Amino acid sequence: MKIGIIGLGLIGGSLGLDLRSLGHFVWGMSRKEATCESALEMGAIDKWFSDFIHLPQDNDVIFLCTPIGGIIPTLQDLVTTDRLLPQTIVTDVGSVKTAIVTEGEKLWSNFVGSHPMAGNAQSGIQAAQAHLFNARPCAVIGQPSSPQASLVAQLWRSVGMEVYFCDTVAHDRAVAWISHLPVVVSAALSLACDREDSSAIKQLSRALASSGFADTSRVGAGNPELGKWMAQANKQSLLTAIDNYETSLAQLKQTIESEAWDDLEYHLTTAHNLRPHYLRE
Amino acid sequence: MKIGIIGLGLIGGSLGLDLRSLGHFVWGMSRKEATCESALEMGAIDKWFSDFIHLPQDNDVIFLCTPIGGIIPTLQDLVTTDRLLPQTIVTDVGSVKTAIVTEGEKLWSNFVGSHPMAGNAQSGIQAAQAHLFNARPCAVIGQPSSPQASLVAQLWRSVGMEVYFCDTVAHDRAVAWISHLPVVVSAALSLACDREDSSAIKQLSRALASSGFADTSRVGAGNPELGKWMAQANKQSLLTAIDNYETSLAQLKQTIESEAWDDLEYHLTTAHNLRPHYLRE
Repeated sequence: MKIGIIGLGLIGGSLGLDLRSLGHFVWGMSRKEATCESALEMGAIDKWFSDFIHLPQDNDVIFLCTPIGGIIPTLQDLVTTDRLLPQTIVTDVGSVKTAIVTEGEKLWSNFVGSHPMAGNAQSGIQAAQAHLFNARPCAVIGQPSSPQASLVAQLWRSVGMEVYFCDTVAHDRAVAWISHLPVVVSAALSLACDREDSSAIKQLSRALASSGFADTSRVGAGNPELGKWMAQANKQSLLTAIDNYETSLAQLKQTIESEAWDDLEYHLTTAHNLRPHYLRE
Repeated sequence: MKIGIIGLGLIGGSLGLDLRSLGHFVWGMSRKEATCESALEMGAIDKWFSDFIHLPQDNDVIFLCTPIGGIIPTLQDLVTTDRLLPQTIVTDVGSVKTAIVTEGEKLWSNFVGSHPMAGNAQSGIQAAQAHLFNARPCAVIGQPSSPQASLVAQLWRSVGMEVYFCDTVAHDRAVAWISHLPVVVSAALSLACDREDSSAIKQLSRALASSGFADTSRVGAGNPELGKWMAQANKQSLLTAIDNYETSLAQLKQTIESEAWDDLEYHLTTAHNLRPHYLRE
């Protein structure tokens, strides 16, 4: 296939590496020529462009891998500059789907939303790696009976992903729990620790912090702009998740206040038993 | 030196490996003979015992590496069975210090509390590994001017740890933030996700859960009994930390409810900037 990738960061670059190794022709686009050159050198793309006007038109699929706020503007540019043939399928990798797919389908009838759940602690083309997507889950918006959604699913499966078809509302509600709530919960930890009013204790807590703090605070300390976009685009589901979280936290706190230690152990055992249901082999 | 380790799990076993490689004679004790044999085979100890009455008396230092609830009963047994010479120093590795050190000092004047902040996701003698403590922080209760605390600090430093002297109250307040609060915050995440009332959405959220959920939920899904003990032994500091956490979480929630997106991004940026102060190179 002839495939375009717009946005050459961790996701776009890693996808290019895998798709090229499967024999597809892959072009890449970034506004930054240095990024394009890096992607070409590492073998993530066959050719690069830095503006819309020179993009080829005869593409089978275009992946929009820009930051979430750039997805719809990029699709708009593709339409405005007449870069899409009627049969070209456009998909994205954004972490919220209702807002993006609603707008995307208005702009292009062959738009299919995707959300590959893969990444690492880094970002940018230099962090791109082969097999990033292997054995990771990917949501594809639509039904398996849709030729467009089916083709997009096939491409994600070809790079090793396990595809789940769903609608945008189900997607956004599901990721509010396991992706967006953790960001808020985790950010609040770093913010809370900073509320210690003795500077000596604060210094000691910083010195003694270990893997428990590091893991729990990690996703909340990621890209603040991405966190803001995700909350904007998934406001209601995220608020529902936070409300439920506050209830669970208050329940744990209550057992400690009332010294109901067996109840505390019961809830911690429940958490211990629940977590494996969310983890992949 | 002649060193005893009582409790041959991840911490006790790893400590034995490192201390023996430094040339010390190390005996180990566990109630389970199979555990003792494993520790001997992997080179974590020179000799083992499974009851108090046969323990040697001429020890320089004994490390109590049992689960937290076993520390004081073990010290009591050492005293009752007359296994301690006046000069023998006894230390422990428990994650709370006021409760343990207060009792420990009553039972043995040469008792020094320690808290090495090292571990991994596993437990038990099979998880023991050399260099587990290297470049990790360790709290030692007391002043550097105390010969007993100084000797204990020297041993922890010899296995690569960075030692911080402090009193029990400062220790417990500091670890409430960075060690005990994360357990509660993290457990509440798994419990909250289970509150989704649609089973289809719950299934989808479990299928899509990725590294963000995995990291944030990890410490809350650890040993429930350890979580209970830690809350019992550090109740007041933990409740203070939870109160402050609730305030920070409510602040984040408020920015989302009121769509104060710039404020949300400001708080997320603060979290992003705070976290590195807690992380070691």
